Amino acid sequence: MSSLEAREAEPPPAGELGAQFLAEIREQPRALESLLSHEDEFARIAASARDRGVDLVRMVGHGSSDNAASYGVYAFGLLPGLTALRDSISLSVYYGTELDMSGSLVIGLSQSGRTPDVVEYVARARRAGAFTVAITNDPGSDLAGAAEALLPLAAGPELAVAATKTYVNTLASLFLLAGHLAGKGKPCRDELRAAIEALDAAIPELEQRILGVALPFAFVGRMFVIGRGVELATAREIALKLLETCRIAAEPLTATDLAHGPVAALDPFFPVWAIASHDQTLPAVLEAAARVHETGATLVASGSAADEVADADYTLPVPMPPTPLLSPLLSVIPGQLFAWALARAKRLDPDRPSGLSKITFAR
Amino acid sequence: MSSLEAREAEPPPAGELGAQFLAEIREQPRALESLLSHEDEFARIAASARDRGVDLVRMVGHGSSDNAASYGVYAFGLLPGLTALRDSISLSVYYGTELDMSGSLVIGLSQSGRTPDVVEYVARARRAGAFTVAITNDPGSDLAGAAEALLPLAAGPELAVAATKTYVNTLASLFLLAGHLAGKGKPCRDELRAAIEALDAAIPELEQRILGVALPFAFVGRMFVIGRGVELATAREIALKLLETCRIAAEPLTATDLAHGPVAALDPFFPVWAIASHDQTLPAVLEAAARVHETGATLVASGSAADEVADADYTLPVPMPPTPLLSPLLSVIPGQLFAWALARAKRLDPDRPSGLSKITFAR
Repeated sequence: MSSLEAREAEPPPAGELGAQFLAEIREQPRALESLLSHEDEFARIAASARDRGVDLVRMVGHGSSDNAASYGVYAFGLLPGLTALRDSISLSVYYGTELDMSGSLVIGLSQSGRTPDVVEYVARARRAGAFTVAITNDPGSDLAGAAEALLPLAAGPELAVAATKTYVNTLASLFLLAGHLAGKGKPCRDELRAAIEALDAAIPELEQRILGVALPFAFVGRMFVIGRGVELATAREIALKLLETCRIAAEPLTATDLAHGPVAALDPFFPVWAIASHDQTLPAVLEAAARVHETGATLVASGSAADEVADADYTLPVPMPPTPLLSPLLSVIPGQLFAWALARAKRLDPDRPSGLSKITFAR
Repeated sequence: MSSLEAREAEPPPAGELGAQFLAEIREQPRALESLLSHEDEFARIAASARDRGVDLVRMVGHGSSDNAASYGVYAFGLLPGLTALRDSISLSVYYGTELDMSGSLVIGLSQSGRTPDVVEYVARARRAGAFTVAITNDPGSDLAGAAEALLPLAAGPELAVAATKTYVNTLASLFLLAGHLAGKGKPCRDELRAAIEALDAAIPELEQRILGVALPFAFVGRMFVIGRGVELATAREIALKLLETCRIAAEPLTATDLAHGPVAALDPFFPVWAIASHDQTLPAVLEAAARVHETGATLVASGSAADEVADADYTLPVPMPPTPLLSPLLSVIPGQLFAWALARAKRLDPDRPSGLSKITFAR
């Protein structure tokens, strides 16, 4: 029995706006624990990839899955030293380009396993000689059938439309697979376990703080969310939560790209959220945050180094994980909770945003 | 003497807001012609890349240069059948990861040639065994010095802060290099020449139409710009023009990603710009546009298939180029002109947006 199950979460306020979303935010530590029970499958698939001489990792997905793929670029780069890319789906699926994919590990990412162009891309990549792996929360899905191998997300049912558990479990899946490819399966598992414990401990306190931070943003129409390196994935995911649950035009940017044009749009009614974590990219993020402050824009700072953002108007710090590469597991939580609290303040239902459904069939 | 030089452009209204920006928009056909005179250099560098056994193309840049790199993914994929990626700068420059880059063609993209982390990435890639090429408008820049080979953008001086000539010349450079790598240098040059003529003919009419389309957007605070495939680059570049010159929170999205969350944010005060061009991605774009229309959002359509967007409130069609791969050279023009006209309507100076400078040293 897991140590986490002993924690009694306060029951979510059933029937209220966003009750499901909040419940699933709280369930994330347990969803991650459940992924750890599949460790043997990660080891086996990593061994197969090595046998196949993989030297390039191609990831495809949309929405939160694509955001997690931004993280994968760093997990595969930093652990086994492999080049990983978010591959173009259009090049293959629409234009019919036939690239040589022998030597490629192709990872199809889809919570539902039913995103049509991701399924089609994986089927084509398999015919082109790639080693194809599906990472999905539905082991019976089309995506699982199209790929040669399957890694289950094991997040349990996710009913709110905005992804939470499946996002962090996708991050953790990419971390574990990268770790096993690097021959570091066991230490990576131990680091992940420690990060899960830190996450579990952090959620209640963040819940307490979140209302005071979110409420002043009730009438905000647009935001930038900046991150760099491993935290670019977090910036993209927080921006997407704000878009889909709070109807804020929230654009993710690298801390550096902010200076290449977008900074000109800022004013005191255009707030910026900066993800500041302790790693080698922190100076670039702090420099960008200082530039934001000069424009008069309101600044929210989250991440393990949130308190180092000198001029932040609001801070939402999270604990340091055992390795900076696992920071995104923790850094995304303030964004999820902020989206939950702000949506409720705006009388929007984050469980069922208008115009969205849990499975996206759009091409 | 070029056929283009015979055309007498109406002199830009010197001293007025955006006079420089408009002049440079008009100069684009001539800037592209000037690039064609460097054809031998493209042939030579492509031959060197083949000799070095290049099988992967890594592009790095920020802002408009990074937008052009989105186009490069398709140019290298569709012409020589090579996988090309917008590589992570952070992985190398901040985290110090040492990937094996033998077999990689590395292309550093920077108008000024002075973007610090692009220069640093290229220097590291060269030490790691990559064949490094600088594409820059300044042959004497740090970037040109860091790379093994140089392709000059040859766009002439670009003084407005928002890039125009250097953006289309970067697209054309990637197209020509990809064409030579595919052994199709001559037909690609002929196609490019025809596209330049179409572009030159289209600009005056677009200038006439633009005021009527731009003025109703004077108080818009946020937009999405959607494209797919080769036109994703255009969506990203038009969004950046709107951000930096008009202070609109404009977010670029693939037509498919729109459905994975962002569509929930739309309402009648959140317009969407759709780039619809005649190629295999058109059905996906038309489907996304229909979905936008259902939300009540105002819809602008541009591109060679703009008139096929059934419910568009405004259309800005452009001519078909000789190959769909060159569509982005034409499709970006309505966005540039819209940004110019709208900035002036808002009493903003698109030549010198507040907070920006022509050379970006931010890390």
